[in-house]
Amino acid sequence: MKRSLVGSTNVFYSNRHACQTMGMASSHSRVTSHQNVIRSQVTPSFYIMFKIPKHQVAGHQAIDGNLGPLVDDSGRFYKPLQDDERGTTELAFYRSFSSKLPHHIRGFFPVFYGTQLVEASDGSGLRPHLVLQDITSNHLNPSILDVKIGSRTWSPEASEDYIQKALEGDRLTTTVTLGFRISGLQIYESKESGYWKPARKEVKSFSADDVRLVLRKFVSSNLEPEPDCCFASTIYGGCSGILEQLLELKAWFEDQTVYHFHSCSLLLLIDKESVLNGRTVPFVEVKLIDFAHTVEAEGVIDHNFLGGLCSFIKFVSEVLTDSKVSTIQASFN
Amino acid sequence: MKRSLVGSTNVFYSNRHACQTMGMASSHSRVTSHQNVIRSQVTPSFYIMFKIPKHQVAGHQAIDGNLGPLVDDSGRFYKPLQDDERGTTELAFYRSFSSKLPHHIRGFFPVFYGTQLVEASDGSGLRPHLVLQDITSNHLNPSILDVKIGSRTWSPEASEDYIQKALEGDRLTTTVTLGFRISGLQIYESKESGYWKPARKEVKSFSADDVRLVLRKFVSSNLEPEPDCCFASTIYGGCSGILEQLLELKAWFEDQTVYHFHSCSLLLLIDKESVLNGRTVPFVEVKLIDFAHTVEAEGVIDHNFLGGLCSFIKFVSEVLTDSKVSTIQASFN
Repeated sequence: MKRSLVGSTNVFYSNRHACQTMGMASSHSRVTSHQNVIRSQVTPSFYIMFKIPKHQVAGHQAIDGNLGPLVDDSGRFYKPLQDDERGTTELAFYRSFSSKLPHHIRGFFPVFYGTQLVEASDGSGLRPHLVLQDITSNHLNPSILDVKIGSRTWSPEASEDYIQKALEGDRLTTTVTLGFRISGLQIYESKESGYWKPARKEVKSFSADDVRLVLRKFVSSNLEPEPDCCFASTIYGGCSGILEQLLELKAWFEDQTVYHFHSCSLLLLIDKESVLNGRTVPFVEVKLIDFAHTVEAEGVIDHNFLGGLCSFIKFVSEVLTDSKVSTIQASFN
Repeated sequence: MKRSLVGSTNVFYSNRHACQTMGMASSHSRVTSHQNVIRSQVTPSFYIMFKIPKHQVAGHQAIDGNLGPLVDDSGRFYKPLQDDERGTTELAFYRSFSSKLPHHIRGFFPVFYGTQLVEASDGSGLRPHLVLQDITSNHLNPSILDVKIGSRTWSPEASEDYIQKALEGDRLTTTVTLGFRISGLQIYESKESGYWKPARKEVKSFSADDVRLVLRKFVSSNLEPEPDCCFASTIYGGCSGILEQLLELKAWFEDQTVYHFHSCSLLLLIDKESVLNGRTVPFVEVKLIDFAHTVEAEGVIDHNFLGGLCSFIKFVSEVLTDSKVSTIQASFN
């Protein structure tokens, strides 16, 4: 579910018959893959046109012959299943979650449509992909924050090698100190400037103050010299704003003993243009993504995710409070 | 602030003049130390009689010539200041906390009376001690749980050696999996049986199910064969019960950005005899102790403590809920 800003028009074609649910691939399957085709072509009705996501901000990307997720024009997102335990774990999660979660929480997860054999973006041939809702598909210029929640991204059951590697990453980023880290972002500025999308290396080295600044920029009409936070009350506040949704998630995490979501991300997606145009249809989306390290909770709440979520909530609520104070001060001047 | 069940009557005498606030030691100081004196002696009025705490359940103990905390007869607890950074950190915490915490939260911390030079229990001579409230002093037969809160007991600023050692301990106990670990306990059974106080090694190897069992035994009139949880509604429940107090702490931790309490313990102290006798004076105490690794929060909530606290709250509330269900079922039989 990771999105990229890479504005590539690379397309991949797969025969629709080849995109069966795993284990049901048609014997008539016929797949044509055209990597790095720049211009879109007229596509026969039985072909699905796969594209590299325009709004991926973190994770593996399907560029330069690498394996990564693809999207189609119908609002579906195809995430390659990893070969190892991560793939099995993520598939098991998607297969089970809807029956295990209360109704009001299911909306925080992308819709799962099953799995399909799809021509992999690295040219390695047919590969099973998770077929998920493409959260960005309804948005023209989405600003996106990918926030990996938890002060620990490793499961106690992981291999020693993995734990050491993850722990190192956790200590080098804000994961340990803040209980979360920003994994990637893009913030829409304007038609002229496009997006602000700092390089991964820069994002990785974010300090607590950088995180605060990003959260202010995320809800501002300007990024420089000083973000105005003019959308804070609409996007972070309000009865369907981000804060309210995070608090709903928090209440669930205080009680749920179904899953422990290691290395899982909160994806915040907003559409500032929709806010400006007064559109009331969802301009704020809060989703949980990435479940390759999600394990059963065995009767214990996910205290690691919950603590990190509470920390993130505090950061968001501080931006909201500060923006209210600024508004009040401005009204007195 | 760690208490021991060791029923020793070892006494230490210090001239009251020697027990000045640090840096103000009288030039007339004269100290007599009698380690391992079994019988109490008539004490001159200017001597303080120090004893080994009867109800210490975790931490260093002042037995067998080791350095450990002492108590006196006036309800004060003398904790030796550690020589290294831990001592400095804990002293700094106690000197600052009352001015930094809201009034309703201060009661969760032991009263701090300053520091005194006291004859150390290991016979090494005068040593600065923190002078604190002896929480057990008003209780005849206290049942005590010492619960180290947080899925991480190390501060990111600690030395690499300390981090590796602490991490190993966290992974070998329930700290990582549950977000807390029981560090020590004693549960009063009866005049005849005394206390159930499992050995440290046993406590260290507790599983999630062992923790559940301990929390049931803690509020039961019997420990075997199946704890009856007959005090659960009075001790865990009710408007001044443990759960209510923990929720008050939780609300504060969701907001406070003053301290990060690494390796800090929740001390739960109850007096089942008081409950039986219908005494309304506090028979339930919830305190935070051990601040040798407490650091400034730098504007970030203590997500590590908060997550662990929420996990512990869930464990306690499950015992309470189960006991209510049992009561309802019994009323139908």
